Amino acid sequence: MTTRSIEDIYAPIREELQRVEQCLGDVARVDYAPLGALLGHILANRGKRVRPALTLLSGQLQASCIPQHVHMAAAIELLHTATLLHDDTIDRAAARRGQPTVNALWSGGIAVLAGDYLFAKAAELIASIGSPALVSLFGQAIITICRGELEQDFSDFAWRRQRENYYRRIGLKTASLFAAAAESGALLGGASQEEAEALRRYGHNLGMAFQIVDDLLDLTGEAEELGKPVGSDLLQGTLTLPVILYLETQKGEAADMAKELSPHEAERLVAQVQASSAIAASQAIAQGYVRDACRELARYPQGEARRSLEALARYVLERRK
Amino acid sequence: MTTRSIEDIYAPIREELQRVEQCLGDVARVDYAPLGALLGHILANRGKRVRPALTLLSGQLQASCIPQHVHMAAAIELLHTATLLHDDTIDRAAARRGQPTVNALWSGGIAVLAGDYLFAKAAELIASIGSPALVSLFGQAIITICRGELEQDFSDFAWRRQRENYYRRIGLKTASLFAAAAESGALLGGASQEEAEALRRYGHNLGMAFQIVDDLLDLTGEAEELGKPVGSDLLQGTLTLPVILYLETQKGEAADMAKELSPHEAERLVAQVQASSAIAASQAIAQGYVRDACRELARYPQGEARRSLEALARYVLERRK
Repeated sequence: MTTRSIEDIYAPIREELQRVEQCLGDVARVDYAPLGALLGHILANRGKRVRPALTLLSGQLQASCIPQHVHMAAAIELLHTATLLHDDTIDRAAARRGQPTVNALWSGGIAVLAGDYLFAKAAELIASIGSPALVSLFGQAIITICRGELEQDFSDFAWRRQRENYYRRIGLKTASLFAAAAESGALLGGASQEEAEALRRYGHNLGMAFQIVDDLLDLTGEAEELGKPVGSDLLQGTLTLPVILYLETQKGEAADMAKELSPHEAERLVAQVQASSAIAASQAIAQGYVRDACRELARYPQGEARRSLEALARYVLERRK
Repeated sequence: MTTRSIEDIYAPIREELQRVEQCLGDVARVDYAPLGALLGHILANRGKRVRPALTLLSGQLQASCIPQHVHMAAAIELLHTATLLHDDTIDRAAARRGQPTVNALWSGGIAVLAGDYLFAKAAELIASIGSPALVSLFGQAIITICRGELEQDFSDFAWRRQRENYYRRIGLKTASLFAAAAESGALLGGASQEEAEALRRYGHNLGMAFQIVDDLLDLTGEAEELGKPVGSDLLQGTLTLPVILYLETQKGEAADMAKELSPHEAERLVAQVQASSAIAASQAIAQGYVRDACRELARYPQGEARRSLEALARYVLERRK
């Protein structure tokens, strides 16, 4: 089975995605030039739009997209962008996707406010859909993401529980928004409760795989493609799955050390993890999540949208950035 | 006319305010102890609850409060609390209402996330009301507040436009939420479009007066009552109405200087403003806003709710903290 390009996977929702881009462009069109420049910088630094695509493809899977799908998809992307702005500020990150961050170019204060602004724009877009259930889903998604971040910041777990802790954390921080993106698309498409839950589980499992692959790429990718230094998670003191799996194979002493590493020690640990079987083991775990995700699609007839959702799952596994 | 105590003013909505407190207390009741402690600290540091009272009294003015008024009022207070958390983080403030700030006790990152969490809780509460119009009003309120903060941060106005700039800024930052609080209470009470707009204007004017008095108290209050040092706005580089009015009476040179003051110069300027007629002039401007606010109530019959809204306007003027 070959991996399809992302453009090919997005073919059934090409027009809707363009309307999402217009919607995002409208957000940056304000009557105050410094704010316009700030929002323009933020929204120009595009990712792969996996989350809005998930909402749109989930809508297509049910029937076909209605205009509200475009608003929901744009709101999901704005919410995601807002969380990135706040994350980068909290982590004092200098670059994101190879571009300087807002906190680096302007200030941490501006980045916090810009994030709040985008949260509110997302809330407005969802309000325009007129479905209180979707506003609730939106609020719940933010609460879950914040909870994940807060647990990470408060984290005082012993290394022996790191793996469990990691799954919980990426479930809250990443998979929850993938789940909300897919569920909202299904609901807007007229899905039954059962169908919406199946799509939610598809999104959750895809999000888990996505984050594990992200964490793998942080160790195995090229700095240039990543737009940030290799091993930056560990350098920032965040233990990801490959590192945790590697440390589980080591003596307790080495594992405890990982909590307080000098930059030099972190670099050495990165090299050890890269050379270990923990990389392949992490890939296998991500594959398991993708399999679980695709299983949820079995209830749907074979068709363009289902094929794209299956291809998206493979893409998430095999992407190089 | 004597100033009534705040308890007396709130008498017609005593029960509803208690339910707002329960609602806020529920937010802090989470199954994760560190988060519970954080939210408990935030929500225990109570202000005067002017904004939720405004929603409830506006509801009473129309007819009587329904359970949704309590949710809306709690959401408005949560949104306000979230903006304080973010403001304090951006300003690196050490104390708020005499208590150490979250950014001082925990970290700036935790304070940002806690603010996001409360935004989302507010969105959830409003979603539970089931009115997309109110979600829109909520989104619009956040957008307006952020816009005010961002314009303040980007501000590069010459001192000659400081007064105009100040009114715009406090209109966006403070009065907009007072306006939304009053308007949402009216709408939930079944107000006509005209009535909702009148209450919105009442709230806006009350908010303008509230902020001018806040800025006056920063110069004329007691550090102990304020819970922060006297003159802290100017020490942080923020020009407020009394300072602007004072500088307008001075030579241009002195006024331009105000942008880059040493702590010692700021203290001297505070003393000069305190001794000047700018204090009384600012009070007169606040009184004008209160008069404009109360004029909007003329369409309503005399009654408990109207009397409380009129008394609240006087209270805002005459409060000492």
